[in-house]
Amino acid sequence: MKTFQTLHWLGGVDGHLRLIDQTRLPVEFVEIDCRDVQAVWEAIKVLRVRGAPAIGIAAAYGLCLGVQSGCHCGVAIPAARAGETPAPQVIPGQLQDVAGSEQAAFFRRLEETADYLAGSRPTAVNLCWALERMKQAACRLRNRPTTEIAAALLAEARAIHEEDRQMCRAIGRHGAALLRDGQGVLTHCNAGGLATSDYGTALAVFYAAAEAGKTLHVYADETRPLLQGARLTAWELQQRGIDVTLICDSMAAQVMREDRVQAVITGADRIAANGDTANKIGTYGVALLAAAHKIPFYIAAPSSTFDLSIAGGAEIPIEQRDPREVTHGFGRPTAPEGVAVYNPAFDVTPAALITAIICERGVIRPVTRETIAAMLVA
Amino acid sequence: MKTFQTLHWLGGVDGHLRLIDQTRLPVEFVEIDCRDVQAVWEAIKVLRVRGAPAIGIAAAYGLCLGVQSGCHCGVAIPAARAGETPAPQVIPGQLQDVAGSEQAAFFRRLEETADYLAGSRPTAVNLCWALERMKQAACRLRNRPTTEIAAALLAEARAIHEEDRQMCRAIGRHGAALLRDGQGVLTHCNAGGLATSDYGTALAVFYAAAEAGKTLHVYADETRPLLQGARLTAWELQQRGIDVTLICDSMAAQVMREDRVQAVITGADRIAANGDTANKIGTYGVALLAAAHKIPFYIAAPSSTFDLSIAGGAEIPIEQRDPREVTHGFGRPTAPEGVAVYNPAFDVTPAALITAIICERGVIRPVTRETIAAMLVA
Repeated sequence: MKTFQTLHWLGGVDGHLRLIDQTRLPVEFVEIDCRDVQAVWEAIKVLRVRGAPAIGIAAAYGLCLGVQSGCHCGVAIPAARAGETPAPQVIPGQLQDVAGSEQAAFFRRLEETADYLAGSRPTAVNLCWALERMKQAACRLRNRPTTEIAAALLAEARAIHEEDRQMCRAIGRHGAALLRDGQGVLTHCNAGGLATSDYGTALAVFYAAAEAGKTLHVYADETRPLLQGARLTAWELQQRGIDVTLICDSMAAQVMREDRVQAVITGADRIAANGDTANKIGTYGVALLAAAHKIPFYIAAPSSTFDLSIAGGAEIPIEQRDPREVTHGFGRPTAPEGVAVYNPAFDVTPAALITAIICERGVIRPVTRETIAAMLVA
Repeated sequence: MKTFQTLHWLGGVDGHLRLIDQTRLPVEFVEIDCRDVQAVWEAIKVLRVRGAPAIGIAAAYGLCLGVQSGCHCGVAIPAARAGETPAPQVIPGQLQDVAGSEQAAFFRRLEETADYLAGSRPTAVNLCWALERMKQAACRLRNRPTTEIAAALLAEARAIHEEDRQMCRAIGRHGAALLRDGQGVLTHCNAGGLATSDYGTALAVFYAAAEAGKTLHVYADETRPLLQGARLTAWELQQRGIDVTLICDSMAAQVMREDRVQAVITGADRIAANGDTANKIGTYGVALLAAAHKIPFYIAAPSSTFDLSIAGGAEIPIEQRDPREVTHGFGRPTAPEGVAVYNPAFDVTPAALITAIICERGVIRPVTRETIAAMLVA
């Protein structure tokens, strides 16, 4: 199986980050080298790298770039722009008791860099989580030589990267066990390797099935308005030699009616305590169509996607996005000037429509408050 | 209510056809004047005018242009190109007994012109039906002066046009009676005035409701891959002052879940004797979603859409179309080179999912072989 790396670190402490520029896909495959933290910030900002896990890993490596020896002399972090989180002028409490002036400068730099990176996509939970974890790793060595701390930071970034890889592989294995050789499977949006370090979540199931010798026929919804299915899912499945057929979202019902697919698998953005699942707009419709055709509907997502503070889907707010995504999505206007547009980014699929949730710990089935709690606290 | 005319004839026997160039919508509103039959042929061929009823009317007027006095001297009909139906070299039987040489030349011209126009879109049923009806009108006067026959042809074209208008209005009235003031209604594709001479079929219901003083809120599916909903339906509803909101096809389920629509109305391409209905791809999915949300699903179509020679939907072949409609539809590639695409043009909605069929004769409900037969033979 041919492969690609969404992002990876080249070299040692003084190495750099290489990542696929996803804004150029599917027309061009271009990798860019990020040799300073500004390049990482920009890559996250303009979606060269996207998907919560991938952003977290990129930010962790970005922090390594920010504390490289070369970085201390002259590579200025730009002042925060309007609307972005400004870098704080004081070092938080936990870092105030560092040993010498070398360490103090290092930690000041670390803190500034973390704040700078956190401002690249302020709502991305994994971004802040990864940066916080990196800072804590540094804190544990706060009185050690800065070269040692820098090495520990790179090790921590590599650990975050590797854990994500393991999570993807585990989801893939659990999911692949649910599918039989020769089956057709529909997916929506891109819950793939491009959104993570490696195999992705929903798409990990296809890669793991292929490794297990099963041939699956994947139907990829193009996923309007932003076409992540057409641009990213079709591309990465094609790259990895998985049989993939692209369809418009409106064709899913017909594909099911013709018995071309025997399962549906999508990713998730947020899963409530009762199993109600927020995901890319269109997922709920696909789940209803699957139910009408008696086809199992699976969600593949890591346990970090569960938000047990939310009892059910009704509490999940639905973000409205720019009408121009619908009317001007790909180069020329497709609708009359001034037309009203409704453009919800997500929808919520009720737990009752979800056959099982595949996470790295195992398969949750049936999907209820009790089975979810049992899996997550196990 | 502001209005537009999909196509109309200006002047008398020596007048000409004016039509909206639909290939320029929604960005530009341009009307073109067709002063010879070649211009009509080209307009049908490249979809400047589209929709079965509108094509039939355009062809009828095209025939009038073909027999205009000026046309006899020097405006050559191009020889049939490869893949098109060649003009026959003999005049069919029914026209062989014409009176004099003036009539013979006129009918030869008429026959050649009809064959030429029929080749513009060979599979369009209404096109052949309209041309045949025009020829028969001419035949009834075959021994009269050609000026009189030409006048009768224009009168017949106007009659075809007016009957279509009346059909649209009747569908509109019957459909509007099913809706209440303030309701939201979802529609898919363009079964509108742009596809007919006037009000359309599904969209006629909205225009008639507005005339009856009801305010409806229309949600228009953009209708991938060719975006007829975004380009045409949104445009014509906006032009006529109907409240319209554009959504992607993948958002229909969410719009229903939020109780924004209380009915769905679409057109039809072909209706089998049992009520199974072929229509633009995506219609079947919308019907399933409507059923899941207990929302009535209506088909609006003239009685000419019924094909009683077909018992049920399983006999309707599903046309597969060019993959590039999916991968290159927005002006630049949206999918990786060489990806497999499944692009069915139509789907079939089973009669069981259709609450009622609205035709010009009245409302068929429930939709069964018996109720359809009763309405059509009445």
